[in-house]
Amino acid sequence: MDWPPAQIWDLELSQLRSNPGGLPEGGGTAGRGIRLCRGKRDEELILPINSSLSVTLHQDQLKTTTTAAISKDFTEDRIWLNGREEDVGQPRLQACLREIRRLARKRRSAGDEDLLPLSLSYKVHVASVNNFPTAAGLASSAAGYACLAYTLAQVYGVEGDLSEVARRGSGSACRSLYGGFVEWQMGQRADGKDSVARQVAPELHWPELRVLILVVSAEKKLTGSTVGMQTSVETSPLLRFRAEALVPARMAEMARCVMERDFQAFGQLTMKDSNQFHATCLDTFPPISYLNDTSRCIIHLVHRFNAHHGQTKVAYTFDAGPNAVIFTLDDTMAEFVAAVRHSFPPESNGDKCPASRSRFLKGLPVRPALLSDELKAALGMEPTPGGIKYIIATQVGPGPQVLDDPHAHLLGPDGLPKPAA
Amino acid sequence: MDWPPAQIWDLELSQLRSNPGGLPEGGGTAGRGIRLCRGKRDEELILPINSSLSVTLHQDQLKTTTTAAISKDFTEDRIWLNGREEDVGQPRLQACLREIRRLARKRRSAGDEDLLPLSLSYKVHVASVNNFPTAAGLASSAAGYACLAYTLAQVYGVEGDLSEVARRGSGSACRSLYGGFVEWQMGQRADGKDSVARQVAPELHWPELRVLILVVSAEKKLTGSTVGMQTSVETSPLLRFRAEALVPARMAEMARCVMERDFQAFGQLTMKDSNQFHATCLDTFPPISYLNDTSRCIIHLVHRFNAHHGQTKVAYTFDAGPNAVIFTLDDTMAEFVAAVRHSFPPESNGDKCPASRSRFLKGLPVRPALLSDELKAALGMEPTPGGIKYIIATQVGPGPQVLDDPHAHLLGPDGLPKPAA
Repeated sequence: MDWPPAQIWDLELSQLRSNPGGLPEGGGTAGRGIRLCRGKRDEELILPINSSLSVTLHQDQLKTTTTAAISKDFTEDRIWLNGREEDVGQPRLQACLREIRRLARKRRSAGDEDLLPLSLSYKVHVASVNNFPTAAGLASSAAGYACLAYTLAQVYGVEGDLSEVARRGSGSACRSLYGGFVEWQMGQRADGKDSVARQVAPELHWPELRVLILVVSAEKKLTGSTVGMQTSVETSPLLRFRAEALVPARMAEMARCVMERDFQAFGQLTMKDSNQFHATCLDTFPPISYLNDTSRCIIHLVHRFNAHHGQTKVAYTFDAGPNAVIFTLDDTMAEFVAAVRHSFPPESNGDKCPASRSRFLKGLPVRPALLSDELKAALGMEPTPGGIKYIIATQVGPGPQVLDDPHAHLLGPDGLPKPAA
Repeated sequence: MDWPPAQIWDLELSQLRSNPGGLPEGGGTAGRGIRLCRGKRDEELILPINSSLSVTLHQDQLKTTTTAAISKDFTEDRIWLNGREEDVGQPRLQACLREIRRLARKRRSAGDEDLLPLSLSYKVHVASVNNFPTAAGLASSAAGYACLAYTLAQVYGVEGDLSEVARRGSGSACRSLYGGFVEWQMGQRADGKDSVARQVAPELHWPELRVLILVVSAEKKLTGSTVGMQTSVETSPLLRFRAEALVPARMAEMARCVMERDFQAFGQLTMKDSNQFHATCLDTFPPISYLNDTSRCIIHLVHRFNAHHGQTKVAYTFDAGPNAVIFTLDDTMAEFVAAVRHSFPPESNGDKCPASRSRFLKGLPVRPALLSDELKAALGMEPTPGGIKYIIATQVGPGPQVLDDPHAHLLGPDGLPKPAA
């Protein structure tokens, strides 16, 4: 499976639901969010060693789309990811399928016969597509598994909390089941029944908040984040201290920042928590380094930008990879994008030059802005051409929604992926 | 002053003593060592938040040479560093001068009049030269201040423990006053009188131990390590936890490893402690990153090399900069140098080609070795040409010694620096 496990980000879920070719079918898209730490206390059930909080990003910019169908004519469970068939036997995928079928069985035995007209023994076909790079720290696993859980729930007629289904695929996926600001409560029970996601504030709570994803590298990373996390829990004394002694207060403070829309405190805590997470990665043995020299230049840029303004106007966070996620408010976005463009000028690539501007900045429109000479001097950096490949501008997004357009389905009437347009 | 404060390394001290031109004069050279953490609890007295341990390296390869002279004809204190006059008013330098004069006065009032024939009001001239890059994390400040303390003690006829004099210049400099393996006991007293260095094991205790310095960059670093350390103590919750809860046990374990010459455990602890120190740097706000992409490639290389051999044959540690210090035993040095050369091939630079081999590897001779195809495959890295500028091969060294050769003096009979040869 190309979905890397355990990420900061949750993809927004949108859900497509219709029944072409007589197949029960469902689908969705899924997003991202900031996360306040992680670490698993149980690898099998995927239970975290601390609670966490994320922001679900808008599916207009970043999404996973999934279609699922069940049929008596299917001879086996199958899955296609970004157009390529993957091994359906992958344990986390199997755990999701087992869990959704268990919930469906439970529901049927409770008498909701009409919600599940088809046999639970029918095989399922799933197709899923991300519109962003996978397995490079852009949280495709959270997105993928949240979307899968939501889609399967549609197909199997399962309602209610899907935290457990999504969590079995990728821990942070459970946060992706909601829009806005979402908390994953670690819970106390050994069986994980109380390790669930809940919405802290809805999508439209903080309308000025903007998110910029600075894509440093779309290459696959050396260390998958699940392997990394396991090793960290086993070897880093700093990680355990952080989870037990520091995270609970930080969670409460982060929730307060969000509720009060206190960007200064929100931004500082976001940066500190990202740094501390990466510190525990470095304290792992052998050490894990997700940040690279470009990531560190971005960190430097943000601190210089804020110092110039005398306040925290911009904040960074990094997941299990070198790409930066920047939080800012709408009145600062244009100036910061100009600062990024100044410090990391897009590489001109000959024949494609006219389009290069639009390719460097994707997503929400950002008006051009001029940098003052004072700010340029304050940044004090040698420009690094090509250090940042492109920027995606986005914002807080909604939770899962059904897509009604049958043309958006990824599976055709034969239950096989449609040929790419 | 070009000496960066607070470093892992102690330079070996050698001391020159003679009296050309009738001037009381002293001089010395100083080296490096591994360190088991740092952090200051008192910025003024330079007291650490935890004890630390270092290895003093051999002055045949890395040294600071210092000459000092006092005369009634000098009109002011003056200092020259690497041939350039520096501001003698620098507070740490002033603290060293004050402290040595205080000790001299104390000694004189105790009746040792003959040891100090000259007036304490005479001004001093100091010249100091490093044979390695300064201010780039190669511990020139520890070397410089240790050497300065030792040299001034010669000139002023002060004997006994110089920890306090050296420490006032740079905390880790007090370790450089001894050869072999040296502990800096943090002490408990508010006045710092019990914050002193002591030798754990002498120079020849572990004759097979070798040290390779992989010089990644000789550029000055962005963050001086004193500023970094202060900010870390103030802002990193992980640093305080480390100092209080983790370092004491690690100190005891490190001393055991050294006493028993247990390279496996010594190497692993050295790597873990280096990683944990850099983790607390990252947990500092704003974060501090001394490691760069090449540093991380070296870390990766070491772990792959050890994994291939199924044991810890090589260990890394990083100070406040990107340069790696590698510990290994003499039977492994040649193969590891070949692995470094394979992964970071020296850049061929045209006209200087014939000499490039000798320039890449300095210090102790290392016999050429061939890498097995299995090891090459195990390293599994794209070579990074020019990533490492050069290697210095060295070993554990002695403490300070007097240099008797008057030609080695840095000050001429007029008390001014001799013109460079």
